[in-house]
Amino acid sequence: MSDSVNRQWLLVKRPQGLPQSSDYEYREDPIPEPGDGEVLIRILYAVMDPAIRGWMDPSGNYMDPIPLGDPVRSVVMGKVVKSNSDLHKEGDIVSGVGGWADYSVQPGFALMPVPVEWGHDLSTYLHPLGVVGATAYFGLFDVGKLKDGENVLVSGAAGGVGSLVGQMAKIKGCKVVGIAGGKEKCDWITDELGFDAAIDYKATDDLSGEIAKHFPDGFDVYFENVGGDTLEAAMDNMAIGARIPVCGMIAGYNQTGDPEPGPHNMWNLLVQRARIEGFLVSDFFDRLMEAYTETNEWIKDGKIKFKVDVREGLENIPETFNCLFDGSHDGKLMVKIADA
Amino acid sequence: MSDSVNRQWLLVKRPQGLPQSSDYEYREDPIPEPGDGEVLIRILYAVMDPAIRGWMDPSGNYMDPIPLGDPVRSVVMGKVVKSNSDLHKEGDIVSGVGGWADYSVQPGFALMPVPVEWGHDLSTYLHPLGVVGATAYFGLFDVGKLKDGENVLVSGAAGGVGSLVGQMAKIKGCKVVGIAGGKEKCDWITDELGFDAAIDYKATDDLSGEIAKHFPDGFDVYFENVGGDTLEAAMDNMAIGARIPVCGMIAGYNQTGDPEPGPHNMWNLLVQRARIEGFLVSDFFDRLMEAYTETNEWIKDGKIKFKVDVREGLENIPETFNCLFDGSHDGKLMVKIADA
Repeated sequence: MSDSVNRQWLLVKRPQGLPQSSDYEYREDPIPEPGDGEVLIRILYAVMDPAIRGWMDPSGNYMDPIPLGDPVRSVVMGKVVKSNSDLHKEGDIVSGVGGWADYSVQPGFALMPVPVEWGHDLSTYLHPLGVVGATAYFGLFDVGKLKDGENVLVSGAAGGVGSLVGQMAKIKGCKVVGIAGGKEKCDWITDELGFDAAIDYKATDDLSGEIAKHFPDGFDVYFENVGGDTLEAAMDNMAIGARIPVCGMIAGYNQTGDPEPGPHNMWNLLVQRARIEGFLVSDFFDRLMEAYTETNEWIKDGKIKFKVDVREGLENIPETFNCLFDGSHDGKLMVKIADA
Repeated sequence: MSDSVNRQWLLVKRPQGLPQSSDYEYREDPIPEPGDGEVLIRILYAVMDPAIRGWMDPSGNYMDPIPLGDPVRSVVMGKVVKSNSDLHKEGDIVSGVGGWADYSVQPGFALMPVPVEWGHDLSTYLHPLGVVGATAYFGLFDVGKLKDGENVLVSGAAGGVGSLVGQMAKIKGCKVVGIAGGKEKCDWITDELGFDAAIDYKATDDLSGEIAKHFPDGFDVYFENVGGDTLEAAMDNMAIGARIPVCGMIAGYNQTGDPEPGPHNMWNLLVQRARIEGFLVSDFFDRLMEAYTETNEWIKDGKIKFKVDVREGLENIPETFNCLFDGSHDGKLMVKIADA
């Protein structure tokens, strides 16, 4: 069926809070044709990112909003079926922005070749060797200006980006403490990933105090994945000259009504001469291979571990997507739509 | 009298909110003697800075708190009376941190020579050619990374630092909009100082919208002197890659009880890949002459204007200090304690 029609999940309503099934429409259309310079891909994987929720909003946040009636936008990996671009040929495996669908037509320049010659499972190119890995890499080293041996705090530490950030910082000889929810996640980042310590935010009423126990002189870099109260607790514990790269703030994504206030301790930025800086990995797209090449070496050396949670079936995408927000997933969440 | 005794205002209680007269004790002591490497100065001017209020708190904020029973700490200019330091000789005019007093003993290395040979009124070396000027200079150029021709927003724009920031940005060909309170201040920064526009925050219910009118595509640099709602309104209007140097936040200095929340739009830091960074001019003390030399040229060329509000009399310092917080001063507020 999916070889003759294009199954799609369209966004038909702007969700309020957590998306509902009524926000989507399932539709089967003919397989589209690529125009000049365009490429038709068979989508193999769609990655479930919290950012997608932001793109569903009228503002779109940092991208154009997904137009109502269009397939839900997603980072995808695909196989080139038909190419009118000199950049890609039939059979190539590429990644880029596509949709919750069997097929997508994209401009050739917007798709990146996947270095399948490195021999990893394809899902690896959607996690440490994909934009997730690049987000950790550029956020930590370029925005965070990490120096060897510094003190590093990471929130969302068992998540895709956070788990990589912590391991990369360990490779650089840093002391790394991760914030995660629940004993299982905390055990994973310390026992499996080699974080120096984990703070279970669900098991404490005093996150700020817990951070202080690990970093009595403050942290140098806090890699911010969460926002809200976690940011405020972290900002109580900045060393002089601390840097806080801000990479998405999942806490606010599904919020309705008024946005929550920022940290009450903004003053500390002045006292500690500290910096908060937002970034998007898209600003580093011309340097992706730099991140991937170095990260590939770390993977080969066994220094980077990661988990992917691959679910099957385009038909289940809306429910699978919502697993992002209730914690019921284990590793970078993606949906496998077809075999390569 | 003041040639034979040392009149002093001591801090004897930690103020709650605005300091009261009962927080101070007036006392006359013998003139102190400098020890090895130390210098005795006759204080000529004491500068009234909002930062002093922070030093009165138990935390001291970014410096050690003023010990109870000590003279209130203040930036001062003084004349060397007796020197046990090779760095200064009797009769030199120096500036540094002293107290609300006639005399102060300081380590020689902590006092900086004042370039009186440039021929300005002494008060000038406490404003554009003092730490006020250096705060504007390093905050704008080093922390704010200002580029020629950018869009610049300044709060506290009629204040000491803010008024210099705006003029320095104009020298660099920028479009400069200042936020100030009241028509008089707004007229001054546009008509006298050459700001492109002023926003009277007291005359609008929609500061964010007012900023947007002047910078429909956002500002590149917002020089933050105020904090609170003003910061939030500014953060609605950041261009991509915007920088916000944070230089004191007067709004919170006299606050009691819970600190006010931070901006509700922290998310915009991510969307706009923007940066908030606190700084203290003390981090640039080894480069002060760099700022002063360039600023002196601008003053000679008539490109920098400034106002000082010099009050007379050590005896009135506590009341004079509180003028900082009710707006009843006109220009950089300082108290003249003695003639040079």
